[in-house]
Amino acid sequence: MTILLTNAWVLTLDDTLSEHNPGWVQIDGSTITGMGSGPPPSIAGAEIIDCGGDIVMPGMVNTHCHMGMSVFRGLAEDVDDRLYRYILPLERKFVTAEMVRIGSTLSAVEMIQGGVTTVADMYYFETEVAEVCDRAGLRAIVGQTLADFDPPDHKTFNQGFALVEDLVDRYRDHPLVTPSIAPHAPYSTGRAVMERIADWSLANPDVPVQMHLAESTLEVEWARKTHGQSTVAVTRDAGLLKPNLIAAHCLQLDDADITMMSEAQICVATNPRSNGKAGRGISPVEKMRNAGLPVGIGSDGAMSGNTLDLFSQFAPVSMFAKLLGGSRKPLPAVEVVRMATIEGARVLSLNLKTGSLEVGKQADLIRINLAAPRLHPIYDPYSLLVFAAMPSDVTHSMVAGRWLMRNRQLETLDPVGAVRDAVQIANSFKAEMRRIDESHDPA
Amino acid sequence: MTILLTNAWVLTLDDTLSEHNPGWVQIDGSTITGMGSGPPPSIAGAEIIDCGGDIVMPGMVNTHCHMGMSVFRGLAEDVDDRLYRYILPLERKFVTAEMVRIGSTLSAVEMIQGGVTTVADMYYFETEVAEVCDRAGLRAIVGQTLADFDPPDHKTFNQGFALVEDLVDRYRDHPLVTPSIAPHAPYSTGRAVMERIADWSLANPDVPVQMHLAESTLEVEWARKTHGQSTVAVTRDAGLLKPNLIAAHCLQLDDADITMMSEAQICVATNPRSNGKAGRGISPVEKMRNAGLPVGIGSDGAMSGNTLDLFSQFAPVSMFAKLLGGSRKPLPAVEVVRMATIEGARVLSLNLKTGSLEVGKQADLIRINLAAPRLHPIYDPYSLLVFAAMPSDVTHSMVAGRWLMRNRQLETLDPVGAVRDAVQIANSFKAEMRRIDESHDPA
Repeated sequence: MTILLTNAWVLTLDDTLSEHNPGWVQIDGSTITGMGSGPPPSIAGAEIIDCGGDIVMPGMVNTHCHMGMSVFRGLAEDVDDRLYRYILPLERKFVTAEMVRIGSTLSAVEMIQGGVTTVADMYYFETEVAEVCDRAGLRAIVGQTLADFDPPDHKTFNQGFALVEDLVDRYRDHPLVTPSIAPHAPYSTGRAVMERIADWSLANPDVPVQMHLAESTLEVEWARKTHGQSTVAVTRDAGLLKPNLIAAHCLQLDDADITMMSEAQICVATNPRSNGKAGRGISPVEKMRNAGLPVGIGSDGAMSGNTLDLFSQFAPVSMFAKLLGGSRKPLPAVEVVRMATIEGARVLSLNLKTGSLEVGKQADLIRINLAAPRLHPIYDPYSLLVFAAMPSDVTHSMVAGRWLMRNRQLETLDPVGAVRDAVQIANSFKAEMRRIDESHDPA
Repeated sequence: MTILLTNAWVLTLDDTLSEHNPGWVQIDGSTITGMGSGPPPSIAGAEIIDCGGDIVMPGMVNTHCHMGMSVFRGLAEDVDDRLYRYILPLERKFVTAEMVRIGSTLSAVEMIQGGVTTVADMYYFETEVAEVCDRAGLRAIVGQTLADFDPPDHKTFNQGFALVEDLVDRYRDHPLVTPSIAPHAPYSTGRAVMERIADWSLANPDVPVQMHLAESTLEVEWARKTHGQSTVAVTRDAGLLKPNLIAAHCLQLDDADITMMSEAQICVATNPRSNGKAGRGISPVEKMRNAGLPVGIGSDGAMSGNTLDLFSQFAPVSMFAKLLGGSRKPLPAVEVVRMATIEGARVLSLNLKTGSLEVGKQADLIRINLAAPRLHPIYDPYSLLVFAAMPSDVTHSMVAGRWLMRNRQLETLDPVGAVRDAVQIANSFKAEMRRIDESHDPA
């Protein structure tokens, strides 16, 4: 079956930023098989979809997420010690396979509605996340997290490794879902276990490694105190700085760290809204990009960044670069859109499959309606995407030739059920939070 | 005719942040005449609107805008000298009464769709802006701008004052539209004219004064070089620091400036997205608030901030405060919502009429639908509004008891026509920009 999208403003995000306007895109099976400007070809039996001048562009790549955590969205905002007061106790008590499935389903719904077609996730009970992504039809990197702080699904690192092995066995050959190993962070993994993961990674070179890196001053202090080095240097010496490492956050860096990261050709996922909301600092995105590091954009979990679309990250990532540079020139809008698409795909080593619209690549694309008055007039489509477009403008989403959303209607998931399940689970959290508050502040 | 909104999650934004959930609001004529929790009163002949659990809250107050400039939205983003290369030449050539009417109409459409019910505007041909706001049904402060750089509607300050007088004469007694005088900025007005405006203001105490203040390092250098003082001190000595001054931006401030502003009890409109996008810096909002200054939120013109709703400003204003404070504690979400409503109204001296839902105040309110999966679960409604809600969630808007939007349908303006007119005028700008580029970069 051929699908032909016609009368579209096609932003390919290929190397030369080709546009076709009005243009067409031909899809056969999971693949883009043709593309061009002007009148579309005549193909017998093709399903023709007139896009009415809408933008058609690559689906967005969310390079860092914790899908299960959407059930914590907006919990105890503005409370400085919320991680230790609420989140870790709640995670220990309530994070089960079922909770992860419910949270991940809600996250998948939101991402499809917001234009994300590929996501890199790391959390617990990660086979549940993999199942949700499979059902949703999302392209995904799913990382089983390993940590030393008594996380909800493993008591020892040996148990954690067993979870990783199980995930890899189950999803090794999945067309869309790639299993991954995810040490939580240097301080919560420890150098010895990082070395073990590095060895494991050498034996499993196709399995991406995801880790939080240089996220907080606490982490920097840990590295300095325990190892007399920067956290990046500790990670390098443990053997984890490799091209298959997706390092999330990367805030607390000096120039030597960036050089180390660049020499090792690692990949970076910046999470501007999460970092900004926590008051943690501004990631030196332009410095990293200038050093040749691929930098993609991540939403982080909904507990930290609240929304999982990338439109919400565009103004922050752009403003932060311009504020660091003291001018409106750094990180032009088109580069922000590249970070959200082809550069994000490069960060996940999926750039040969997705991230741009090119013949032979997978048909991962979204359609953006231009009816909203706030989008007009249009001088530049990338500026429109970065500073005026919103998730509600995304009307269609396709991954590997399969529609995940048409005319805002989801094709693979039930949004009403997803919300209902998440609300129900949140009610038990609220009861526990009241108990915690009473034990902290006895009446 | 009585309108009764029932089954609503009423956020009043009154002094004690009362909520009614489920709650009801009674409106007679332009006024809120009743409000409460539980079952609504039975009123013969009332129009009853079941809000289905949606949030009903005060309409938002955009404390700084240039409505006419929406026709420049997204023009030459990322070009450092765009003000002098494009904007001022385009303004000189194309800013006419018609252009201001077209731009302001598009802006009014966008603001109503995005939950803004009150706006403070300053631009040229301001009687056109006043007419648009009157037609739209928006509550507005409309400021005729005065400047020395050959602006499009006056060659001399005497001519500028005549425009102000005309505006004041026409709108002095309008129920919703308040005329205002708007010296562009200290450096573009000059101290002598600022003194003249201060004298005029003493004779016209009910006319608010709007001015850009401490917006850029260039302005700070001008003040230092020309007067040996800070720009705030120059403004104070000219007599303009008064409680009826609405000062926009206020980035480049030291502690002495904030003390001066606080002693004079001026009001501030912060424009985080516009400032961030220009790489200009971060306004010390918490310092100003701690010094007792009322601080509202502004979108700035769409050329600078791109969108005119306040949701787009919430994450930036919040993140900036948390980044300056190095923690997630500063400026809690509820304070951001207060800035967008009752504090914004206070900035415009309209807080006795609007900005909160209280019996006796004007019925300026919006309804926010909670269907979007990205809004759930809900732990705190203010966190939801600041970090997850978007303009597309606003379904209804009312000003002074009159519906401006119902179920996303505008009642007073034609959005399709507004877009069409703006696109047409933008096409002439694009031709002129090509001429400018050719004269700068001859082939």
